[in-house]
Amino acid sequence: MKFTTYLRHGAPRLAVIDGANIVDLNDAQPNIPADIRLALKSGIDLDAAARAAIVGEAARQPIAGVKLAPLVPEPGKIICLGLNYFDHAKEGGRDKPEYPWFFFRGASSQVAHGEAGWLPQVSNRFDYEAELAVVIGKTVPRHTKEADALQYVFGYSCYNDMSVRDYQKRTPQWTIGKNFDRTGGFGPALVTADELPAGAVGLRIQSRLNGQVMQDANTSDMIFTVAETIALLADVLTLEPGDVIVMGTPAGVGQARTPPVWMKAGDTIEIEIDHVGLLSNPIVAEPA
Amino acid sequence: MKFTTYLRHGAPRLAVIDGANIVDLNDAQPNIPADIRLALKSGIDLDAAARAAIVGEAARQPIAGVKLAPLVPEPGKIICLGLNYFDHAKEGGRDKPEYPWFFFRGASSQVAHGEAGWLPQVSNRFDYEAELAVVIGKTVPRHTKEADALQYVFGYSCYNDMSVRDYQKRTPQWTIGKNFDRTGGFGPALVTADELPAGAVGLRIQSRLNGQVMQDANTSDMIFTVAETIALLADVLTLEPGDVIVMGTPAGVGQARTPPVWMKAGDTIEIEIDHVGLLSNPIVAEPA
Repeated sequence: MKFTTYLRHGAPRLAVIDGANIVDLNDAQPNIPADIRLALKSGIDLDAAARAAIVGEAARQPIAGVKLAPLVPEPGKIICLGLNYFDHAKEGGRDKPEYPWFFFRGASSQVAHGEAGWLPQVSNRFDYEAELAVVIGKTVPRHTKEADALQYVFGYSCYNDMSVRDYQKRTPQWTIGKNFDRTGGFGPALVTADELPAGAVGLRIQSRLNGQVMQDANTSDMIFTVAETIALLADVLTLEPGDVIVMGTPAGVGQARTPPVWMKAGDTIEIEIDHVGLLSNPIVAEPA
Repeated sequence: MKFTTYLRHGAPRLAVIDGANIVDLNDAQPNIPADIRLALKSGIDLDAAARAAIVGEAARQPIAGVKLAPLVPEPGKIICLGLNYFDHAKEGGRDKPEYPWFFFRGASSQVAHGEAGWLPQVSNRFDYEAELAVVIGKTVPRHTKEADALQYVFGYSCYNDMSVRDYQKRTPQWTIGKNFDRTGGFGPALVTADELPAGAVGLRIQSRLNGQVMQDANTSDMIFTVAETIALLADVLTLEPGDVIVMGTPAGVGQARTPPVWMKAGDTIEIEIDHVGLLSNPIVAEPA
């Protein structure tokens, strides 16, 4: 099943995708919260609700005619991994990590599919990062083991962990360079876990800048798998419905090129993961 | 004015403090959301509402009889500064930073005043950090200057940025060691900005472990002031109502002592900031 979050009168609403159309889940079944995080928290079987919505009476509308929101507009946590593909660690002069380099994004950094990413006023070192996003569906019990971890995943999507490299490196803490407004591309759709290989392995992942392939790898190249990452996190914290894990990027980022490639206003950056989706963002200068 | 967040039937509710009593603001004026973040977002004048509530008919109850929640239970962002007191940077062998070492906490890491902080199952290197917390009241326009920054602050509180040191240092990214469940002590009360010196400077800040003073400094020793920090953040991102900035800790943490001092089950850790409050947490072993 495929879900998305679109805007109605400026407010994000969860919908199921049926071919070229979407059906609003809250319209179809009013006890389902319109926000995906609250819908997941409610414990309602969204897959069953989506199947019913598709054959039901609720209005459908062409997906091409709606404006999307970031897939999970207000996650409790957005946990990102750095250096989770060895070739990317190497291109940055780093060793293979023995533990994930975790950092967090805030919801205010996110941007929807089709919406403009913002080239910051204060920097022109603006880079792309193709990543697999994991959306948690059910609370993960603390100290869950790797073998049991995947049952808590609701589904997968594309993320563009756009990074402001000079701010990322102003101190050893990367967080600030990963939290500029309108830099976390997220979407367009969530594909439920049952439609993909376990842990979303074996999927081609690419970024393309103005049509040119910049990153081209496979999710099987991740150092820490989705299940392993969830288990490591469960030793530390409670993963909750609607939390998002962003699984790191492969080689080919702009800063590692000679000469470096920085995104500029007028560019279009695309992230594509086979069977998961194609996330596209035009780049514009941050409004004055 | 002083506010707090307490629990009614498990749900957090904003209240104004009147001496030894509290008055529930949503009871007093039903158009005020019970959640402090939503109450701030609503744009309602909470100071006027609090004054009216204190002289109004709504029920009051002794603060001693209620269970508190983390002051802002679900902030949009919790932005923390590392190394923001020079003596603490020095005790860790670091230079005076030229830019704040920002990292984020998630809401799931927070713990209320009086509630037990959790000594993790996976580590015994559990440390305290006395910090000043800043609660944003109004959206900060991007690129706000330092001179204009303080008008967006709603008030101040105490934070205990409890840190799991081995996890903090597993990679150069500190985030994971700062996000264990029940490690971010926050409260007990918010003191509005008008009741304190501008930027909350000149206030004694202490931590005490089982009554023994471990940190003893003054908020005037902060390297980056509250106004400067807000201005630096405004170059990057949108600070929103209910966002929290945690301003860093002075010298005296457990890991910098010879021998190191780690918190253990049965301890009580207190953070006190003059005119702001006293935050106390017993430490217990994380439940199996």
